[in-house]
Amino acid sequence: MEKYESKVFQHGTLGMLVPGLFNGTMTIEDLLKHGDWGIGTASGLDGEMIVLDHTPYLAQSNGEIRVLKAEEKVPFATVHFEQIKDKFTARNLTKKELEEHILKTYPYKNVFFAVKIVGKFSAVKTRVVEKQTRPYKPLLAVANEQAVFEKSDVSGTVIGYFAPKMFQGMAAPGFHLHFLADDKSIGGHLLNFDVSEATVYLQPFTTIDQHLPLDNQEFLDKDLDIADMHDQIKKAEG
Amino acid sequence: MEKYESKVFQHGTLGMLVPGLFNGTMTIEDLLKHGDWGIGTASGLDGEMIVLDHTPYLAQSNGEIRVLKAEEKVPFATVHFEQIKDKFTARNLTKKELEEHILKTYPYKNVFFAVKIVGKFSAVKTRVVEKQTRPYKPLLAVANEQAVFEKSDVSGTVIGYFAPKMFQGMAAPGFHLHFLADDKSIGGHLLNFDVSEATVYLQPFTTIDQHLPLDNQEFLDKDLDIADMHDQIKKAEG
Repeated sequence: MEKYESKVFQHGTLGMLVPGLFNGTMTIEDLLKHGDWGIGTASGLDGEMIVLDHTPYLAQSNGEIRVLKAEEKVPFATVHFEQIKDKFTARNLTKKELEEHILKTYPYKNVFFAVKIVGKFSAVKTRVVEKQTRPYKPLLAVANEQAVFEKSDVSGTVIGYFAPKMFQGMAAPGFHLHFLADDKSIGGHLLNFDVSEATVYLQPFTTIDQHLPLDNQEFLDKDLDIADMHDQIKKAEG
Repeated sequence: MEKYESKVFQHGTLGMLVPGLFNGTMTIEDLLKHGDWGIGTASGLDGEMIVLDHTPYLAQSNGEIRVLKAEEKVPFATVHFEQIKDKFTARNLTKKELEEHILKTYPYKNVFFAVKIVGKFSAVKTRVVEKQTRPYKPLLAVANEQAVFEKSDVSGTVIGYFAPKMFQGMAAPGFHLHFLADDKSIGGHLLNFDVSEATVYLQPFTTIDQHLPLDNQEFLDKDLDIADMHDQIKKAEG
């Protein structure tokens, strides 16, 4: 049997957003060479990105959902090519119940893995950050400037990742999930949801390809030696 | 001009050693497919690995230095293929002075980079951990069980990496350097050195390939959610 190997690609880190490195540093065209499912944010934190089967949707804070252009840049994004390892049907579960079920059933608590959930949701609550302009504030200040959207009885797709605590700094520990409705009526970073009936797909990764913008002077110069970075990540993403 | 891209490969993480995951999980043969310069440790923490130009040397706590076999396994190792970006001559510098010079001169404080130093050292001080047997103790307890070696006026090679604080957990933040004398009379993890005259080579990385042993049940089961992991890393590696 061939050994299972699967990789996820990440450009930028959550830790880089903490002190306000919000400008895009990789084009969508380059990003999608490394995966066709995933999540991220746009330049200036102008919304929440949801990449579904090679299409990079952006949910914006005014409620609009558009497709990002090939030449637009992102400061932070995570993508992978699909290679599903586990699949099950979920019925009548809250976000918390589903996440606990996954961690109890599959031996993935210490690795990165992708989560995709396709089906019907009795309730969905998302948040979308507001576009920032220079001079950029720290992430923690921006986390309060966001639009919140709610909808009942909606069909759509959840896509995102679980990251172990060991990698906090690179990513937010725990589940980090985005959503897009089939009819594009709602999207964004998932604050909460209730599944009525959906298929859940999991893909654990053996390799994390962490890419950094070595050609970006602002990143190279920035003071990232932040004493309370872990606390700030917890507060901003919690 | 072609855009500069360079990658480093890491199997396992420092964070996995903290609670005592010391057993080898990747063969030397597989590891060297991802790089031919680097550092690491052997299964059971049986010494300090120094990979020089595709040869995986192991400095052991009894002072012996041997070459690891292709089928031997490592729990934690970092390797890269050489693609030097910066080069300079260092004369009469302490370890601290040299490290400060590098961070002051090159814009690499926020990225991973490799350091190679080839030449003459007026003094070298290394430590080599002692081989552990099951049940494995936490890394912090093992850090006190180590042999220390010192030598004056020795020619050799320093190889290792700098990791930014953002990646603490994956690696030890700051410089993590190993040494091997040309005549194999001394090797190990560098505690201190004084350069008399040497050439310093730097290679910053745009990508960190972090590989995890998804096929290792002990890793999957282990409780890595350690509240004071960062403190323990600081104490064990300081």
